[in-house]
Amino acid sequence: MSERRLAGIDVTPLAGVGTVVWYRPDADLPEPPAPEEIDAEAERAAFEEARDEAEAELEAERERTAERVGEDEAAVFDAHVQFINDPQITDGVAERIDEGLPAAHAVQATFDEFVERFADMEGRMAERADDLRDVRDRLLRLLTDGERVDLSSLPEDSVVLAERLTPSDTAQLDPERVAGFATVTGGRTSHAAIFARSLAIPAVVGVGETLAAVGDGETVVVDGDAGEVVVDPDEDTVAAASQRTEAAIREEAVETVDGREVEVAANVGTPAELGPAAERGADGVGLFRTEFLFLDRESAPGEEEQYETYREAIETFPDGRVVVRTLDVGGDKPVPYLDLPDEENPFLGERGIRRSLGPDSDLFETQLRALLRADADTDTGSLAVMLPLVTTVEEVAEAKAVVDEAVDALESEGVDASVPEFGVMVETPAAAFMADELVEHVDFFSIGTNDLAQYVMAAERGNDAVAELGDFRQPAVLRAIDATTSAAAGADVWVGMCGEMAGDPELTELLVGLGLTELSMSAVTVPAVKARVTETDTDAARALAENALAAASKDEVIELLE
Amino acid sequence: MSERRLAGIDVTPLAGVGTVVWYRPDADLPEPPAPEEIDAEAERAAFEEARDEAEAELEAERERTAERVGEDEAAVFDAHVQFINDPQITDGVAERIDEGLPAAHAVQATFDEFVERFADMEGRMAERADDLRDVRDRLLRLLTDGERVDLSSLPEDSVVLAERLTPSDTAQLDPERVAGFATVTGGRTSHAAIFARSLAIPAVVGVGETLAAVGDGETVVVDGDAGEVVVDPDEDTVAAASQRTEAAIREEAVETVDGREVEVAANVGTPAELGPAAERGADGVGLFRTEFLFLDRESAPGEEEQYETYREAIETFPDGRVVVRTLDVGGDKPVPYLDLPDEENPFLGERGIRRSLGPDSDLFETQLRALLRADADTDTGSLAVMLPLVTTVEEVAEAKAVVDEAVDALESEGVDASVPEFGVMVETPAAAFMADELVEHVDFFSIGTNDLAQYVMAAERGNDAVAELGDFRQPAVLRAIDATTSAAAGADVWVGMCGEMAGDPELTELLVGLGLTELSMSAVTVPAVKARVTETDTDAARALAENALAAASKDEVIELLE
Repeated sequence: MSERRLAGIDVTPLAGVGTVVWYRPDADLPEPPAPEEIDAEAERAAFEEARDEAEAELEAERERTAERVGEDEAAVFDAHVQFINDPQITDGVAERIDEGLPAAHAVQATFDEFVERFADMEGRMAERADDLRDVRDRLLRLLTDGERVDLSSLPEDSVVLAERLTPSDTAQLDPERVAGFATVTGGRTSHAAIFARSLAIPAVVGVGETLAAVGDGETVVVDGDAGEVVVDPDEDTVAAASQRTEAAIREEAVETVDGREVEVAANVGTPAELGPAAERGADGVGLFRTEFLFLDRESAPGEEEQYETYREAIETFPDGRVVVRTLDVGGDKPVPYLDLPDEENPFLGERGIRRSLGPDSDLFETQLRALLRADADTDTGSLAVMLPLVTTVEEVAEAKAVVDEAVDALESEGVDASVPEFGVMVETPAAAFMADELVEHVDFFSIGTNDLAQYVMAAERGNDAVAELGDFRQPAVLRAIDATTSAAAGADVWVGMCGEMAGDPELTELLVGLGLTELSMSAVTVPAVKARVTETDTDAARALAENALAAASKDEVIELLE
Repeated sequence: MSERRLAGIDVTPLAGVGTVVWYRPDADLPEPPAPEEIDAEAERAAFEEARDEAEAELEAERERTAERVGEDEAAVFDAHVQFINDPQITDGVAERIDEGLPAAHAVQATFDEFVERFADMEGRMAERADDLRDVRDRLLRLLTDGERVDLSSLPEDSVVLAERLTPSDTAQLDPERVAGFATVTGGRTSHAAIFARSLAIPAVVGVGETLAAVGDGETVVVDGDAGEVVVDPDEDTVAAASQRTEAAIREEAVETVDGREVEVAANVGTPAELGPAAERGADGVGLFRTEFLFLDRESAPGEEEQYETYREAIETFPDGRVVVRTLDVGGDKPVPYLDLPDEENPFLGERGIRRSLGPDSDLFETQLRALLRADADTDTGSLAVMLPLVTTVEEVAEAKAVVDEAVDALESEGVDASVPEFGVMVETPAAAFMADELVEHVDFFSIGTNDLAQYVMAAERGNDAVAELGDFRQPAVLRAIDATTSAAAGADVWVGMCGEMAGDPELTELLVGLGLTELSMSAVTVPAVKARVTETDTDAARALAENALAAASKDEVIELLE
């Protein structure tokens, strides 16, 4: 039988070969026994025990995820613990047990009732349905114990196939044992896809129902680059996949065909990602998010703790630069010790630099002190400080004044301080429109394409109904990028990009043509982008960029890219 | 004693003279009698009666407001009815009566408990505190009957002074009897200010505690233009105020000193505003909102009903143009027969043209049919159709195809159809960035500065924490406007503006300098803007605009304007 190819959505530029293990957490439960055969007390006890175990598991996975992927992704487990302890749910289960259902069936019926309510909604509310399913499946696994696949102890070289993988599921996967995964549903921005990229697991999502025809034990290639699952692969296909998996990692800096250097750096969300980023050949860190220091704790981190973290980051890249973004929180993330407002449109609210110059000014000062000290105390590597969500020149001037005050304060205390490179994120239309004024006040710009596209197109990226519109290949978004690079062209200011767009190798030539000299992305895509840079000719890239800027629609841009 | 001037925030460019009537809905209640003297049954009955009366009043005010001001503003009364019937509130009152409080005191204590909870919050949630106070005061007025000022039956030439005026309060004011109002608190975008502008009542808000020193029966001038309350005014002051009130209304079109015509039109939210707009000299309607046809009803309006409404609008301005904006709803407004999504950031969601080309395509077709027929069946005046929230060229092309199909369909039915002027709102950064492409597909642009400023600055105008940032005098916003007018300059396309910015006479010269040839605003400010146009010299205006475009900050722009 010759190989069969199933098309899906590409998630990671990696391929893997292995043996299929189907993961079916929501397989039907057997018919329940008659109500009179149920020992309600025993079932209630079983449910309580499963709850306790689930909570313990969740705590452990929370920790592991925070360390391996990041605080943002780990936060989902807090929501799960809440569901497990929600009285509406526990009461619902207890009632059903009293009515004569076994614990597992009572759990399924109760959760499914809530899942249905949330599933009708859109966007973030619909995601809660996923969370509920996730918690339900965990409890069912514990209640039916042993009958379901345990993702944390798979045989080596397993390829996991599933209808879908929840955050809990992916968090259990061990990259050393899993050769890849593929799912029936899901999109490029699903939790599973984000995990796959962070952990460098080959993955294809959204394959559709054809995936169901692949059986346990079959050999498959998961080609996360082509977005294909190859069943019963030929030798050549396997060889090509293996080669792709070991995509040449370039440790050295890269330049275009005509000798123009382009820095290829990594976006990093936790210290645990620093080492892997360096291993994949990142020249430095183009976006060091500092939220992990502040989230999921009872009080703000002190200067010393931050200082140590920033030092570690700088020292990981002795020949490179680490761009640290100052704290970027707002109304869409809860932080217990910050008085974050409840806003109708949090993305148009008090976020980023607005809070650092407002209610969180103390935190900002402490963070800057830690950064200035870490820069002074490291002999190798270099530090840059970057402000999020800048819209006005005044904000930059004010922030700079806070830096100057921090330097003065440290010096008067006899503590070494060094003034790092200073720049802003260009992630609002205002920053792009005012780039020619902002350029007078900074050493660099870094374009945050996720937010920039969202604001330029007035389309939230997390909202499925408008996600297509918010694509960064929209010519309006390219023009906002061009306004930024053009404003910087005459000045001694470098322009980087740290949004998702920077990590797409298909766009590398366009971005070089638009004048970017630094690209920062998920570590997993660094080798592919470095390879693209070395194939790029600046003149051709410029011509491509000019055509793209003159395009009337996203489709025209896509055509140019092909 | 000579006159005293109290400074506040200017709200309407009108002045009025009259006699002070203090409105103190939240004056302290007298000490309650001892619990044993309370007839709980009678108090409960009194509360029920007050609730019934309040509900009837609210229904009536809802109707009146919808007719006089607009559906958006009327919607607040629906929230009030909900509060009156909220079991948490009615139970709270009943409990307190049972504990021995009279109905009025029970109402006050119960509402105040909730007010306090909401008052700590920010933005929209804080507004709910206002709503609660409003409902509380209505019930207290009904329960203490006659002891409080009834705003709906004031003596002629009253000037109402108050700590604050709620939407219910302002809705009761009769512009024929009220010479003006002034409040201690409130800002330019408060409900009271919006009502004052819609109803052309002279008003000053945010005067502060000094207002408390003005006594009942004193004569005052409320100068809504200067933002001043003049107590015990001199004869000259009174004469000047009277003159200002009768600000010269120009029926004719106006032009700049050097003969450049600038159309000054009105924004209209309901048919009831058409007549008053014409009376204040509007050349036409620059923004005819059609939401009133669709909101607060059980099913969508039919083609015939819409046709009649559009005809009426066109016929009100036989020498002018009526620009009708197609339905602009989204996740922030509930419409029972539309399946509007619950979105995390409704302003970045499925709104405006996105819905008309998506889930609401049937409504869009019906609306276009009604418009094409109304245009064909009117001999005088002219119609223009305008699309809201456009971000891409494809949207315009798609919408145009729907127009063409509607023309074909009407023609094949033997019904007269005429193709009106066709344009788009420029209210997203994407539209401004793409104006040079959009210009190929339209007859006009109309810049919606409220949304444009919000998206350019990533700052929601209804969110107090960031409202300052979202000011339309930000140079980034001016640059977005300039991108639009510059793109249209070479083409046969006119550029208007229908956001709040257009109605500020202080900005008329700047807007003319930026290349706008139509300005559309609240009817009340039409005379003042017409006057400014006639004083404007185009060359000087251009120089001003160039300086403003080169400004680095909002403060620099404000300085230039002074």
